[in-house]
Amino acid sequence: MRATVMFGAGDVRIETVPDARLIESTDVVIAVRRAAICGSDLWPYKTWEHSETGRPMGHEAVGVVEAVGADVRTLKVGDIVVMPFAYSDGTCVFCHEGLHTSCIHGGFFGIGQVGGAQAEAVRVPQADGTLVVLPAGVDEALLPSLLTLSDVMGTGHHAAVAAKVGPGKTVAVVGDGAVGLCGVIAARRLGAERIILLGRHPDRIALAREFGATDVVSERGDEAVERVRELTGGSGVHSVLECVGLEQSMRTAISIARPGGAVGRVGVPQNETMPASQPAFYNNVTVGGGPAPCRAYIEELLPDVLEGKIEPGRVFDRVVHLDEVPDGYRAMNDREAIKVLITF
Amino acid sequence: MRATVMFGAGDVRIETVPDARLIESTDVVIAVRRAAICGSDLWPYKTWEHSETGRPMGHEAVGVVEAVGADVRTLKVGDIVVMPFAYSDGTCVFCHEGLHTSCIHGGFFGIGQVGGAQAEAVRVPQADGTLVVLPAGVDEALLPSLLTLSDVMGTGHHAAVAAKVGPGKTVAVVGDGAVGLCGVIAARRLGAERIILLGRHPDRIALAREFGATDVVSERGDEAVERVRELTGGSGVHSVLECVGLEQSMRTAISIARPGGAVGRVGVPQNETMPASQPAFYNNVTVGGGPAPCRAYIEELLPDVLEGKIEPGRVFDRVVHLDEVPDGYRAMNDREAIKVLITF
Repeated sequence: MRATVMFGAGDVRIETVPDARLIESTDVVIAVRRAAICGSDLWPYKTWEHSETGRPMGHEAVGVVEAVGADVRTLKVGDIVVMPFAYSDGTCVFCHEGLHTSCIHGGFFGIGQVGGAQAEAVRVPQADGTLVVLPAGVDEALLPSLLTLSDVMGTGHHAAVAAKVGPGKTVAVVGDGAVGLCGVIAARRLGAERIILLGRHPDRIALAREFGATDVVSERGDEAVERVRELTGGSGVHSVLECVGLEQSMRTAISIARPGGAVGRVGVPQNETMPASQPAFYNNVTVGGGPAPCRAYIEELLPDVLEGKIEPGRVFDRVVHLDEVPDGYRAMNDREAIKVLITF
Repeated sequence: MRATVMFGAGDVRIETVPDARLIESTDVVIAVRRAAICGSDLWPYKTWEHSETGRPMGHEAVGVVEAVGADVRTLKVGDIVVMPFAYSDGTCVFCHEGLHTSCIHGGFFGIGQVGGAQAEAVRVPQADGTLVVLPAGVDEALLPSLLTLSDVMGTGHHAAVAAKVGPGKTVAVVGDGAVGLCGVIAARRLGAERIILLGRHPDRIALAREFGATDVVSERGDEAVERVRELTGGSGVHSVLECVGLEQSMRTAISIARPGGAVGRVGVPQNETMPASQPAFYNNVTVGGGPAPCRAYIEELLPDVLEGKIEPGRVFDRVVHLDEVPDGYRAMNDREAIKVLITF
């Protein structure tokens, strides 16, 4: 089959690889219908050293079940499913607590014997726990939004939950990438009264406003902090969604939280230490978040997507066929595209 | 009047200073009956550069009101009161949210025109909002425990709240100082099933066990992490109370939290950055806490102290008269004493 393989920074190729197949009796193999390139794929794309073998890429998919392991109970060939970016058994203590990304028997795509989702097919371990079946005959037009439940919409929602967004709260979203934009959707959905987007790209800002952002701050660093303070009567916001992961963005996030506020961070942190520990302490600012348990959130978010109440699929502003994925990486890396949808 | 003044590291003196007096109409002056030396007083005691003028010390007190400003409504001469370590108006938005340490009109003792509490008397700004009146004729034997509501018991409770301690939770307390010991009391009071103390001093460990600690880990660093993991089936604890504030203790705290767990930090952080940002992220460990809003907690904790349900005053293992305070600092700094009570 054809699959996306990254051999090093800037070197993404579509290769012929062995077909995805059942290995464990709890596996399913899905034929991928829609996949995506993720902001987190850009970290290795920028920094990864050359490798002869390469690494299979992709962890977001909507697909159709085409093979089912002997011990799978809830899925059958032909089911159309959403695949969260982590697999999980759905039965361990952490899954029961809704933290599927820490599943004892779970893991991530593109590692070991589990391939990537930017491919014609992908093996899904722990399929009963991992996959969510969509209604038969679901409208094709909804597939992009359904695909965001694999990662970016669930991740934006996780940031909002970790930042304790709720009715009447004032919220800031740091970062205008696809996750930040989904964070705006999530904040509005959870009842935020005011949503300040920190971002600089006109096209993304325009979309954020349509999603519910009420204010935009395009300054950076201390100036951004000053501007958010001005907008909030001097004290900062209740909830900050940190959707970047850099030292500077984390410092900004902590600095714009009001005393007693919360930062929900979902941008993969690029540093071993967290800056601004003392301001966070003296202001009793809580810092939470991490890899989003998207599996847990699909049940909550899916009805809103099916009813058209939220349209996170609008973050896809470029569509490529699998063969064009390398150019999709380039376009996202050059910020020509917010997020790239892959068709088959 | 006589008051404690610190002139630099290791240089604490009892000086004659101008009497505490009313300045604002919302002030009260209290005659101090019991005061204390705080673990946080040891940071300047270890590190502070010499100063000609010195700094008045102390922020914990039980006292008797001896002068009342014209606009004070709830206090009268002769009232016996607990003074939290921060003053606050009780009416601003942050006070209403229970975060009195971020009061817009609040502040701390020993700064500017507000003296310290290791003195015969102290001026209390925003007295209506700050002070809590105790029942007339309160048992003298309860004064040490009542005094801990100024700081260490409220701070231990804050760590437990920030660490989301609740019924059935497994808890670790990092640090066996007075705050850590009060954290054990708080964790038990909030229903923790298992309380692991990380500490090394036999006398403190013994007291922690009486307060409710079920396990003790005396290793440090990676070995401590390993030991806590062993004690918790490999996964770590739900709640960590970080009661030290050093880089190493914070790293340990984050490393022993289970996925989805919470660290409540109340040890004043000595570093600008927080270590182990990535483990906290990948495990979705929340880090919260800061200066404890002790004023908010007095109402919750006071009945338990008055009824003898909790005895945080047992952390005082040395009593000195005001004149002996310099030796009290030495004893605490040399770890001869857990916490020093000052009488007048």
